[in-house]
Amino acid sequence: MKILGRHLVAELSDCSAKILNDLPELKRSLIEAARRSGALVVDSVFHRYNPQGLSGIVVIAESHLSIHTWPEYNYAAIDCFTCGTSVDPYKAIEYLKATLACKAIKVRELNRGIPSDSDSFIAHKTDTHMTPVAVHD
Amino acid sequence: MKILGRHLVAELSDCSAKILNDLPELKRSLIEAARRSGALVVDSVFHRYNPQGLSGIVVIAESHLSIHTWPEYNYAAIDCFTCGTSVDPYKAIEYLKATLACKAIKVRELNRGIPSDSDSFIAHKTDTHMTPVAVHD
Repeated sequence: MKILGRHLVAELSDCSAKILNDLPELKRSLIEAARRSGALVVDSVFHRYNPQGLSGIVVIAESHLSIHTWPEYNYAAIDCFTCGTSVDPYKAIEYLKATLACKAIKVRELNRGIPSDSDSFIAHKTDTHMTPVAVHD
Repeated sequence: MKILGRHLVAELSDCSAKILNDLPELKRSLIEAARRSGALVVDSVFHRYNPQGLSGIVVIAESHLSIHTWPEYNYAAIDCFTCGTSVDPYKAIEYLKATLACKAIKVRELNRGIPSDSDSFIAHKTDTHMTPVAVHD
């Protein structure tokens, strides 16, 4: 693969149900997690479901950080896709583990990029992808 | 794992650079892809980068569908996380493969849920998670 970035897929269980259903706190935490990873936050969108559960996605210049919560299971599904070498997605996951009072975590890491016969890294072109120029939603 | 959903991670290469940089077309395609999978579209957010490249995320009641494009490499990174049994995320990926004029695709499928010693399925509680009640962004 011609690697452009890393995608962490994390299962956070035995979390605080209260925090998993606290939209303002989860929004603050997700944005702060992105910042702690070194990412540039571009935008975010959050939703509350009835009667419980939240979805939140932070768009970062380096791709995205998402969370979906099931307070009824004390569980949150997180994924953090980051490109380039200036961002450490594990810092985002570690921060969220702490803020959600998570007692059990499983993280899988996938390389993302263009399939090829051998592995190599190719430029993310951070100077271009780090510069959002317009918002369309 | 107590499985709540599936997460498809797809690398689309040899795509049309023109379409990968066409924000209105990509937005239309991503939302239509979500609908074709059977998902309920809740919200979306898109960004254009300088001088090229787009990010787009569609929040669905069943989780999310995202795309990040590198027209300079004719490459798009897509992920589609869906919960419950009413949605077929492969339909979203197939639709995007066609609309992006993609000639090479690699898809990885991950189960998402609560880690445990053996595999089983647990209720996504569709009737609750299918009902967004508030928008906070």
